[in-house]
Amino acid sequence: MLDDVLSYLESNLANSLSDLKEVLRLPSVAAKGENMEETAQWVADHLDELGLESKIHKTSGQPVVTGHIDVGAKRTLMFYDHYDVQPAEPFDLWESPPFEPTERDGRLYARGVADNKGDTVSRLWTIKAFLETGTDLPVNIKFVVEGEEEVGSPTMPEFVKDNKDFLKADGGIWEFGGSGIDGIQEAWLGLKGLLYVQLEVERLTMDAHSAYACILPSAPYQLVWALSSLKDSDSRIKIDGFYDDMKQLSESDLKAIAKVDLHETEVKDHYGIQHFLNELKDDALKEAYYNAPTCNIAGIESGWQGMGSKTVLPAKAMAKLDFRLVETMDPEDIKNKLRRHLDNNGFEDVKIAWYDGYPAAKTPVDHPFVDVVNKANKIVFGHDLVVHTTSPGSGPLYLFTDSVPMVSIGCGDFDSRAHSPNESIIIDNYLLTMKRVAVVMDEMSRW
Amino acid sequence: MLDDVLSYLESNLANSLSDLKEVLRLPSVAAKGENMEETAQWVADHLDELGLESKIHKTSGQPVVTGHIDVGAKRTLMFYDHYDVQPAEPFDLWESPPFEPTERDGRLYARGVADNKGDTVSRLWTIKAFLETGTDLPVNIKFVVEGEEEVGSPTMPEFVKDNKDFLKADGGIWEFGGSGIDGIQEAWLGLKGLLYVQLEVERLTMDAHSAYACILPSAPYQLVWALSSLKDSDSRIKIDGFYDDMKQLSESDLKAIAKVDLHETEVKDHYGIQHFLNELKDDALKEAYYNAPTCNIAGIESGWQGMGSKTVLPAKAMAKLDFRLVETMDPEDIKNKLRRHLDNNGFEDVKIAWYDGYPAAKTPVDHPFVDVVNKANKIVFGHDLVVHTTSPGSGPLYLFTDSVPMVSIGCGDFDSRAHSPNESIIIDNYLLTMKRVAVVMDEMSRW
Repeated sequence: MLDDVLSYLESNLANSLSDLKEVLRLPSVAAKGENMEETAQWVADHLDELGLESKIHKTSGQPVVTGHIDVGAKRTLMFYDHYDVQPAEPFDLWESPPFEPTERDGRLYARGVADNKGDTVSRLWTIKAFLETGTDLPVNIKFVVEGEEEVGSPTMPEFVKDNKDFLKADGGIWEFGGSGIDGIQEAWLGLKGLLYVQLEVERLTMDAHSAYACILPSAPYQLVWALSSLKDSDSRIKIDGFYDDMKQLSESDLKAIAKVDLHETEVKDHYGIQHFLNELKDDALKEAYYNAPTCNIAGIESGWQGMGSKTVLPAKAMAKLDFRLVETMDPEDIKNKLRRHLDNNGFEDVKIAWYDGYPAAKTPVDHPFVDVVNKANKIVFGHDLVVHTTSPGSGPLYLFTDSVPMVSIGCGDFDSRAHSPNESIIIDNYLLTMKRVAVVMDEMSRW
Repeated sequence: MLDDVLSYLESNLANSLSDLKEVLRLPSVAAKGENMEETAQWVADHLDELGLESKIHKTSGQPVVTGHIDVGAKRTLMFYDHYDVQPAEPFDLWESPPFEPTERDGRLYARGVADNKGDTVSRLWTIKAFLETGTDLPVNIKFVVEGEEEVGSPTMPEFVKDNKDFLKADGGIWEFGGSGIDGIQEAWLGLKGLLYVQLEVERLTMDAHSAYACILPSAPYQLVWALSSLKDSDSRIKIDGFYDDMKQLSESDLKAIAKVDLHETEVKDHYGIQHFLNELKDDALKEAYYNAPTCNIAGIESGWQGMGSKTVLPAKAMAKLDFRLVETMDPEDIKNKLRRHLDNNGFEDVKIAWYDGYPAAKTPVDHPFVDVVNKANKIVFGHDLVVHTTSPGSGPLYLFTDSVPMVSIGCGDFDSRAHSPNESIIIDNYLLTMKRVAVVMDEMSRW
């Protein structure tokens, strides 16, 4: 009985959290490639424990873990999660250690708790609740849990190519989601694409005394000029042809977007700003949010960064850029345009040391699976989902959308600080999000 | 007898180096404020041991150590040195640990050995050689050894103001110098001024997921735009009025400069470059070397600098800039012009977090003390000094030039890598530079 499942989840919340804390203690930072196999094994063991036959797929990068059970149901539900997390730096801004999960004021703090180990474990425990209460699974289940989502999912294309048959389902729940700043649950139907590049300039074979800046070329200045050439102070990207393949928002997108409140005042207060970028607001803000490609400096580094002064002319400089792409921009094409821009503007020596990326994708807003998820949400949370046609964030959704309509919901909230210090979730939301998945499974069986 | 002094220096080279290594093991990095008092005490103890009455002068920053002895001679010689060193980062580029002095192939490697502990200790040992051989000191001696030269000598003005009477001498030997790329000894009669600023931008109260770059302002981009606005890609500085107070080179400067060979090919090979900045060469290169003010990025930092990718929109960004100033530019005035430039170009939020600096200064190329030093050099090294009217580097020379004609010579060489990894000196030069100071003292007594 579904009610037994929901009761079980409630009375076993502490056990579920204990499991979650165990995996949060593994610092599986994909950018550093640490603790990855151990964490993949943790996921595989927990899938097996639930009778979901696990498989650890070797790839050219980190392994992908899958699990599945076919109970002969009409519908199949897929979960896409990831066992890797963002780096936790800067550590000194954390109020409790990032890899020592800590409860405070109804929240659970740890790197990866919102993005996305909390969701991964909550979904495993929802299945467990069916098993432990002797309730038949109403749908067949598939799990895909990758280990490189936070570094651009470089090996997912090869995994998907090799596992085409596995990647079919009637509906899928994507890795993240939660409540907005007003506490209302949100669903995300799409993700922007990503191009991540590391730029490097080397203009001298060794650092020089900065006295020689009068006659020697500067790597950090060359990088600064190159970055400045990429984007105007009004944030318009100046790479030739950058916006050429950008699809405009459709009528149904615009209709869905019109229903959304972006809570401008609250978001500005949260980040301590007077104005959004370029003083955007109302419809223009929404258009940027849902359909603006970006060129962001995620990191920049050269020379002396310690205390006080060091008078050095650094030999090298480095910047990490992430471009968010919208439909139907191609990351490889944008990378080529970036290279051409650099070459044509005197920045031949600014190297693209490495890059990675994937395109944007969306599940249509009028797909019936979206209604199934919304109905479940209303039963558990008592209100309709706010439906975002796309998230401003990215993920390899494009690999799935041909064969699985995906909806992203989860246990996060507006203050979850994914990718930032003091990442956390509200423990009450964690419980409700488990219940919601149970009801999605139940509703799906009657779809 | 002078000959006894020179023989003593030769036969006691190992002892002198042993003393030098002792002080090189103290990582007196002014930028970090570490080991400063201990190193100041080391200098004071060694002055006292030579009968040069030492005094450790408290300042609002690091102490200044002085020593002096009045033997009733006609002339007084002053030494200006510093016991602080540059930071040694990046450590991984050092072939032997920076604070563990190591001899290799006739060179001695350590942070500060060329700049300027090697010179400081060599000068102490020259005095010692007179004492130990029972040779009368031919001149009165004064030492000024400060502890913040590498961070812009912020407290030297207060020290000089409080010790005006002490700061008189017939000639002075400044902290650094050595041989050029052709092995010929060089002297530096002037130093450029310096304005060092730390720029900081904060545009959000916390780092954000870079997905929000579509609607939130970027601190690193604001900094990049600000830096780009300061200097064109042809290195012309765009701060309004920046060049207004710049004194052009005099006739006697130009005459002295005409004699100098900057060894363009060898310098380019050393730094692995095809061309100097803006393809400068010949007279234009010399003019830049001796009289171009600069705007140099000594450090820049924001966001994720580790391996791989992190998709973050950093809340803050920081850059360290050093401006080399020529006569008669005023660092305070340039700082005000920088602030005005930032305010007038949309960079009000780019803060000058702190700054420091001092003006340029020169000893006239036709001063008789310059001839005294050249004569001594010819006796010891067998050739005339290459006389540079100014160094492209900086130091608080302006505090001394009113009362002491200063000439900068020392034990370094072209490959000494001051401020860079693998700083070193040639041990043979160290010995000869001690002998040269002994002969300067001798010649000075007959001036």
